[in-house]
Amino acid sequence: MALLVKKFGGSSVATPEKIYHLVDRVLAEKKPDDRIVIVVSAMGDTTDDLVTLAGRVSEHMPKREMDMLLSTGEQISIALLAAAFQARGQKAVSLTGPQAGIRTNANHTKAGILEVKPDRIVKALDEGNIVVVAGFQGLADTGDITTLGRGGSDTTAVAVAAGLKADMCEIFTDVDGVYTADPRVVPGARKLKEITFADMLELARLGAGVMQPRAVEYGEHTGVDIHVRSTFHNVEGTIIRRNYTLEEEKEYVVRGVTSDVNVAKIAVRGVKDTPGVAFRIFDALAKANIDVDMIVQSASAEPQKNDIVFTCQKADMADAAGVLETLKPEMGFSRVDMEANVAKVSVVGAGMLGNPGIAAGMFGALAAKNINLIIISTSEISISCLIPKDQVEVAVNAVHDHFFPKQA
Amino acid sequence: MALLVKKFGGSSVATPEKIYHLVDRVLAEKKPDDRIVIVVSAMGDTTDDLVTLAGRVSEHMPKREMDMLLSTGEQISIALLAAAFQARGQKAVSLTGPQAGIRTNANHTKAGILEVKPDRIVKALDEGNIVVVAGFQGLADTGDITTLGRGGSDTTAVAVAAGLKADMCEIFTDVDGVYTADPRVVPGARKLKEITFADMLELARLGAGVMQPRAVEYGEHTGVDIHVRSTFHNVEGTIIRRNYTLEEEKEYVVRGVTSDVNVAKIAVRGVKDTPGVAFRIFDALAKANIDVDMIVQSASAEPQKNDIVFTCQKADMADAAGVLETLKPEMGFSRVDMEANVAKVSVVGAGMLGNPGIAAGMFGALAAKNINLIIISTSEISISCLIPKDQVEVAVNAVHDHFFPKQA
Repeated sequence: MALLVKKFGGSSVATPEKIYHLVDRVLAEKKPDDRIVIVVSAMGDTTDDLVTLAGRVSEHMPKREMDMLLSTGEQISIALLAAAFQARGQKAVSLTGPQAGIRTNANHTKAGILEVKPDRIVKALDEGNIVVVAGFQGLADTGDITTLGRGGSDTTAVAVAAGLKADMCEIFTDVDGVYTADPRVVPGARKLKEITFADMLELARLGAGVMQPRAVEYGEHTGVDIHVRSTFHNVEGTIIRRNYTLEEEKEYVVRGVTSDVNVAKIAVRGVKDTPGVAFRIFDALAKANIDVDMIVQSASAEPQKNDIVFTCQKADMADAAGVLETLKPEMGFSRVDMEANVAKVSVVGAGMLGNPGIAAGMFGALAAKNINLIIISTSEISISCLIPKDQVEVAVNAVHDHFFPKQA
Repeated sequence: MALLVKKFGGSSVATPEKIYHLVDRVLAEKKPDDRIVIVVSAMGDTTDDLVTLAGRVSEHMPKREMDMLLSTGEQISIALLAAAFQARGQKAVSLTGPQAGIRTNANHTKAGILEVKPDRIVKALDEGNIVVVAGFQGLADTGDITTLGRGGSDTTAVAVAAGLKADMCEIFTDVDGVYTADPRVVPGARKLKEITFADMLELARLGAGVMQPRAVEYGEHTGVDIHVRSTFHNVEGTIIRRNYTLEEEKEYVVRGVTSDVNVAKIAVRGVKDTPGVAFRIFDALAKANIDVDMIVQSASAEPQKNDIVFTCQKADMADAAGVLETLKPEMGFSRVDMEANVAKVSVVGAGMLGNPGIAAGMFGALAAKNINLIIISTSEISISCLIPKDQVEVAVNAVHDHFFPKQA
């Protein structure tokens, strides 16, 4: 007997046929005594359609009313899914986020879950039901319906699993699990059997898009094991948990290689070499809500001057340039250069900094392909290199092959 | 200052343009200190679309899940309507049926309202909001969402008005008010300024389709005055209340003339003249859920036998004939005749039975047009005649002209 929370995305319930495919799969996997909670998103494009409808009524849809509107999407899918289970002869009941006891703050359209009071879920399970819970939504103490922001159903599933002390939270997705690199780019990428929350979060931060980072953080915080697995294939996926348990996983320091082409490089040339200049630049960028990632300062070609180079999201590049232009008169630097044809390649794995061979291995693999490193940055659990964008596929494959040699 | 509840149907919110038309009209009529609650149905065909979707998933949609599904329709319209008021600079907030304190029994898909606990509505009004409440839905003590059945938004509006002790419940509809006859059939029909709940209910029972009878009953029970008025024209409609207050209305005994072509006549010929035969026939029909209306028993052409003639809904005619066929062997009547080409014309008005001139006037008006009366039946507040269907328009006009003579 196991208590399982299973989360399915909107594409899994997009049509009546897909709903029955989901139902039949869940029933085929269910052992007689299993207690099962399903968390589900809105059908197919429902949420996008509702957002479009809201835009036709108001350019500035009030956030409370947006949540009132969007929460109907999951309410439709839970009703249909519960009906489909019953049509197959399985007792089932649907619960909205508020009914399921999902308590959130009142931060409409991106509310945070405060706690899950699972009394109604437990009662419905005790009565022999499969319980179908609406993802993405909850109830604030104001009595208002809230939504958790895009991808919030992952967080709902982990929070419900934590509230129920479930044996496992299964996230069904369109990939088979978490890979050592994107299998579409790196043919030799291998599926990880397990990964820690910390490594998973770093992978997500650096470009791997498998799971909603907030859901992973919620899992880390509450200690819920998360099984990321395929909607399409009935195979084992990847389990995200606090510590590695498998001997075969413990031997790897590097867990994955990621790339991110959605970055831009900005260079501020000829900055005066006096205290406080870096603070003024990055304080102004922070106030403009621009996230800065890699930062390097080096001596300029001009005497007593420095160059400050950093990266940001490509979408923020123009805004960042605008902020710097307003600083230019008072700070008197020579010019700002922008470069969008760059990409970031990273390796991730806890304990990396205690192992100097990792950085050397990465740089060597890139050098062997004649790839120029524009910026290097490191954290406790990752090393990242900025490289020319057109070399990103070669770079990811080279680095991956170094750390995960192809097996004979 | 007035506290007003205004109910709008789904066609009034079918598109963003119609939503703003509604909003602008409400704001134009609103006096500065008015406190306004709007009750609204689902947009346009939303409910029908959801019913179709349910049918694609399950032929036997569980009623609890049907309510979970259908209640999303009004939730969408309240969110958009509240947003539109805000876009016009008017504070507004939407409340689902459960949030608005609509307590119902757990009779899913046709729940009855037990009471309205209007605390949240009052609080939102006190904060200066126009409050937009979802019609058609409520919350059972089980914690489950319920719906009230088709047309339930009228009932929601009256119940909310009763719970708030509102000055008036305004039902906006596609007609200008309650008329002495259907203006599409009787050119001289005049709009009533007021009508009692009892007369309105009898008109509705006999074919006038202006308002949901359950909503009228709720108004009668709680004493809420209901103003039936036009969505399209800003004119006074008809006020439904406990007693007539206007002298000009008090002088009429007859309030309206209705017709119903949706009836059938069934004659059971040659029934033995012994006790209990009528009971056996109508008990069998009641058990088959067939509503019987006018009943006449008369001596048959055969000796010691009677004919029993009655009417029912046209849709039930075939079922009724089937029930009677099963009774024929044991009861031994000669045959069953069915006739669908009939219509019922009625006059309605309290105090009619104390005024024998009314029946005579009706029969005289019909005789003057050579219309044969097949069956006559009377209640305390109505007289009905079954006539050939092809004469129904002539009949209604003749009776109406008799009781409401054309003014010079």
